[in-house]
Amino acid sequence: MMAAVPPPRQSGRDLRSPGNRGGLRRRRRSRWLRVPMAAARRSAESAREPSPGVKGGTRCLPGPCLAGGGGERFCASSPFRGGSGGGRTRVAGAEAAMERREQAVVPVEVLAAVTREQFLQDVYPRRMPVVLKGMELGTCITKWTVDYLSNAEGSKEVKIHVSAVPQMDFLSKNFVYRTLPFDVFVRRAAEFKHKEYFLSEDEKYYLRSVGADARKDIADIRKQFPNLAEDIQIPEYFEKEQFFSSVFRISSAGLQLWTHYDVMDNFLIQVTGKKRVVLYSPRDAPYLYLSGTKSEVLDVDNPDLEKYPLFVKAKRYQCFLEAGDVLFIPALWFHNVISEEFGVALNVFWKHLPAESYDKTDTYGNKDPTAASRAIQILDRALKTLEELPEEYRDFYARRMVLRIQEKAYRNDYG
Amino acid sequence: MMAAVPPPRQSGRDLRSPGNRGGLRRRRRSRWLRVPMAAARRSAESAREPSPGVKGGTRCLPGPCLAGGGGERFCASSPFRGGSGGGRTRVAGAEAAMERREQAVVPVEVLAAVTREQFLQDVYPRRMPVVLKGMELGTCITKWTVDYLSNAEGSKEVKIHVSAVPQMDFLSKNFVYRTLPFDVFVRRAAEFKHKEYFLSEDEKYYLRSVGADARKDIADIRKQFPNLAEDIQIPEYFEKEQFFSSVFRISSAGLQLWTHYDVMDNFLIQVTGKKRVVLYSPRDAPYLYLSGTKSEVLDVDNPDLEKYPLFVKAKRYQCFLEAGDVLFIPALWFHNVISEEFGVALNVFWKHLPAESYDKTDTYGNKDPTAASRAIQILDRALKTLEELPEEYRDFYARRMVLRIQEKAYRNDYG
Repeated sequence: MMAAVPPPRQSGRDLRSPGNRGGLRRRRRSRWLRVPMAAARRSAESAREPSPGVKGGTRCLPGPCLAGGGGERFCASSPFRGGSGGGRTRVAGAEAAMERREQAVVPVEVLAAVTREQFLQDVYPRRMPVVLKGMELGTCITKWTVDYLSNAEGSKEVKIHVSAVPQMDFLSKNFVYRTLPFDVFVRRAAEFKHKEYFLSEDEKYYLRSVGADARKDIADIRKQFPNLAEDIQIPEYFEKEQFFSSVFRISSAGLQLWTHYDVMDNFLIQVTGKKRVVLYSPRDAPYLYLSGTKSEVLDVDNPDLEKYPLFVKAKRYQCFLEAGDVLFIPALWFHNVISEEFGVALNVFWKHLPAESYDKTDTYGNKDPTAASRAIQILDRALKTLEELPEEYRDFYARRMVLRIQEKAYRNDYG
Repeated sequence: MMAAVPPPRQSGRDLRSPGNRGGLRRRRRSRWLRVPMAAARRSAESAREPSPGVKGGTRCLPGPCLAGGGGERFCASSPFRGGSGGGRTRVAGAEAAMERREQAVVPVEVLAAVTREQFLQDVYPRRMPVVLKGMELGTCITKWTVDYLSNAEGSKEVKIHVSAVPQMDFLSKNFVYRTLPFDVFVRRAAEFKHKEYFLSEDEKYYLRSVGADARKDIADIRKQFPNLAEDIQIPEYFEKEQFFSSVFRISSAGLQLWTHYDVMDNFLIQVTGKKRVVLYSPRDAPYLYLSGTKSEVLDVDNPDLEKYPLFVKAKRYQCFLEAGDVLFIPALWFHNVISEEFGVALNVFWKHLPAESYDKTDTYGNKDPTAASRAIQILDRALKTLEELPEEYRDFYARRMVLRIQEKAYRNDYG
C-alpha cells in the first residue's frame, strides 16, 4: 500500500492511513505558502529548529511551514516582516512592493511505500517531483559510515570539487577541481575544519562520480565503486534498457549546488545525511535567467531582484530529504541542492524518451535531446536571416516569431 | 519654420511660437492620459462636443483630453467611473482591477509647417507617427466636393466595400465587395440614407483604390484617377525611386477600418472630412491578437477583455485628422481608422528599406519583407523539428527558443 505521509520531520511514526485501500492516496493540492525570500533561507545548522516568531511582525514558524509535505499548516507571514517594524500604515503601493519580494513555496509531495506498479501507473505520468519514503534500499542505510566507506573503496583516486565558499557557482567557477584518494576525500568531506586543505581550513568538498574516462564513459557505481555497489539496492522503477547512469554524490555539510536541469529522469537516493532541495518547473524557465542548463540566480533564498526581477515569478517547490528518502526528479525540472549535513547519495538516471532521442556524446545526462538542439540551431538560422533587417523591423518580426512559437508549441494545459 | 501646435481643435489660429527659430520645436513628451476604455469611445456624431462630467465620478472632459496634441491637459479619471457610484472604499484589489480596464492614451505629436528637410532630419528618423499640419496640398482642398469628384472621373467602375455595420471586420468578412460607377459611389458614400442600396438603407461604403489589375498592378492615383490627380500636390518627403503607391480612400461617415499594419511608410493625406486614428507601436504586437497583419480586436474602444486580456497593455496613440492634415504612419505601426465624416483621402506609400527587401508580388504594401518571411518559414521548420518531442519537452524547448529570440533579436532600447 502506498500512502501520503505527513511532513518528513515527523516520519518516524507510521502514519499511513488504514482506511486507504484504493491504491494511491494523495494529499489534496497543497495550499501555497507565501513567505518572504529571506524567511525561506535556513542555514544547515538551524534547519531542524523551529524559529521563534519574528520581532514586531506576525508570529511565524518557518521550520514546519517550509517542510516538504507540510502544506496544510499555513505560514501567515506579515508583509512587513523584513521591514522596519510596526507602526507603518498598510499602503497599497508598499504592500504590492513587498508582495513582489515574497515567493510561493510549494512542498513537494511525499509518498510512502510506493510499489513499482503504483509509481509507474500513478506517479510517473504526472511528471512532478515526489519524495518517496520507506523504499527498500539495502544495507547501505546502516553500513555507510565514514570508516566503512573509506575501507570499502580505499585509496583509489577521485576528482573532486573544492570550494572555499558553500555556494558553488558553475558560471563564475568559484571552485577548483582537485584529485584525492577516495578515503582521504571522504574523511575531509565529513569534517568541518581541515588540518590539510587546498584553499582554506573550512573548504567544502563535493564528489560527482564520473566514468573511467569522464569524456567518454558514463558514471556507474557498479564499475567505479563495485564494493559499495553491493550494499545498495536501486529501486528499478524503470526498464533495464532505460538505465543511463548511477552517480555517486558525496558532499560536505553546507555545500550548495547551482540550480540546473538534467535531460534524464532520475532518483536522488539519499543514503546518509540530509539535504534541502528547491525545485522549479520547466515552465518557469523564463524566470530563471538561464545560461545553458544552469540558472544565473545563485542564491535562491536571497536573490538579487534588481538583477533578476522575474525570479519571484518562479514557483518554488521544496523538500527536505533524510537518510533513506528517494526524490524523483523528472527530466527538465530545475533543482538546487543544499547538503544540510555531510551525506552520501546515489543519483540514478534513466531514459524517459526513446533511446535515439538523446545525444550520443552525452555522458552527464545534461545535453539537450537531439531534436531540441536541432530546433535551436534552425532557430539561429532564422535569427541570422532577421539580421538582414534594420533593428525596428528585426524587433517586430522577432516578436511575431515569439507569438508563433507560443501559439504552436506551448502547452495549453498549463495554468 | 516648423513648430509644435496645440490640439487640432484649436488649430484655426496660427499658434506657432515666434521665439522658435532653431528648427524643430517639439512638445515635451506628453503626459499619459489614463482613461477607462469606455470613456475612450466617442461616436462620430459627438466627436466635436466636449462631454459633461461623469455622474457620480470625478469630473472629466474626455473631449479635449483625447484630442491629438492635447497631452498637457490631464483627465483625472476616477477608478470607479464605470462602477456603481460613490460610497465604495478604495480597496487595493478593486483599484488594481479597475486599473486593468483603463488604458493609456498618448496623443500623436502634431507639428506645423514642417519642411522636407526638417522632416527628413528630425521627424523621419524617430519612426513615430506625427500629424503634419499646414502642408501645401494643392487645389484639392477646396475643389473636391461631391459634385466635382463625380464630374471629374465620371462613371468609370470602381470596386468597393459595402457594410451593413460601421465596424468592418476583415477576419469574419462582415462586408461585401460590389462594383459601382465612380460618380454613383461618391454620392452614395456621402449620404446617410440610401434610396438604392445593396444591403440596407444605411449601409456604409468604402473605396480603397487598386491598380488596373488588382493582383498585378499597384494603385496610383495618376493612372486610375488622372483628372483628380492634377488637383493634389503630394508632399514628396522621400526620393522619387522610393515611391510605391498612391491609394485613393473614400468612405462613408462612421465607417471603421480594422486595426492592421502596412510594411511601407506612408502619408495619410486627409483632403476632405475628418478621421479619428488610433495607433499602436510595433512593439505592442504581443497585445493585439494578430491574425496575419490584422488585429482580432475589432472594437478598440470596448474590447472584449475576457477574450483579449492583454489588449489593455497596448499603448494607445490617438489623433484626429481634419481636412488638410497629413498623418505620417511609419511602416509596422498598427492603425485603426474611423471616418467621422464622409471624406476623401490619399494615402501615399513609399519604401523605407532598400527596394530588394520587399516582396515583388506585393501590390498592397502589406506583405512582410522577404527576410522576415524567410525567417518565419525557417522558424516553422524549427517548430516542426520540436514536434518530434513529447509535449512537455516541446513546451520547455519552445520557452528556451523564446528566451533566445528575446535575447538575440529584441531591441534593448525599448522601455
